[in-house]
Amino acid sequence: MEMLKVSAQSNPKSVAGALAAVLREKGSAELQAVGAGAVNQSIKAIAIARGFVAPNGIDLVTIPAFTEITIDGEERTSIRFIVEPR
Amino acid sequence: MEMLKVSAQSNPKSVAGALAAVLREKGSAELQAVGAGAVNQSIKAIAIARGFVAPNGIDLVTIPAFTEITIDGEERTSIRFIVEPR
Repeated sequence: MEMLKVSAQSNPKSVAGALAAVLREKGSAELQAVGAGAVNQSIKAIAIARGFVAPNGIDLVTIPAFTEITIDGEERTSIRFIVEPR
Repeated sequence: MEMLKVSAQSNPKSVAGALAAVLREKGSAELQAVGAGAVNQSIKAIAIARGFVAPNGIDLVTIPAFTEITIDGEERTSIRFIVEPR
């Protein structure tokens, strides 16, 4: 599954566009966010992407999950969003 | 649909418990969050609630949506999470 990293500085509309492109090509996508700002931008991106793919008959849903990642040698908990048609 | 308000100070595990209770009783639930901190706690709560209802055979997904609300006479954009079995 294609994984897009989202930061607090990411533009939700740009992420939504990338997400819609991956969804149309692969059928599902994944976002990864570390921190409240990144999670917030991810959710906005998913809400916007719903509008992008709705005309293609896709009703987008997301499954949030915790995942451990290593950043600069430190263990951090990130949120992974699996984004799929219902 | 029952609506639970989540703030940046909300305890994700407590929200998850309330969410699971509403889901078992009504079949679906809604969270409302204003701001990045509240969105982050909502997402954690949904991820935790997935584990609470999985033994009941429920595969929980969420649909994020923008919604306009009025707080102290000011228009604010909040995020509404529709939480449902897949």
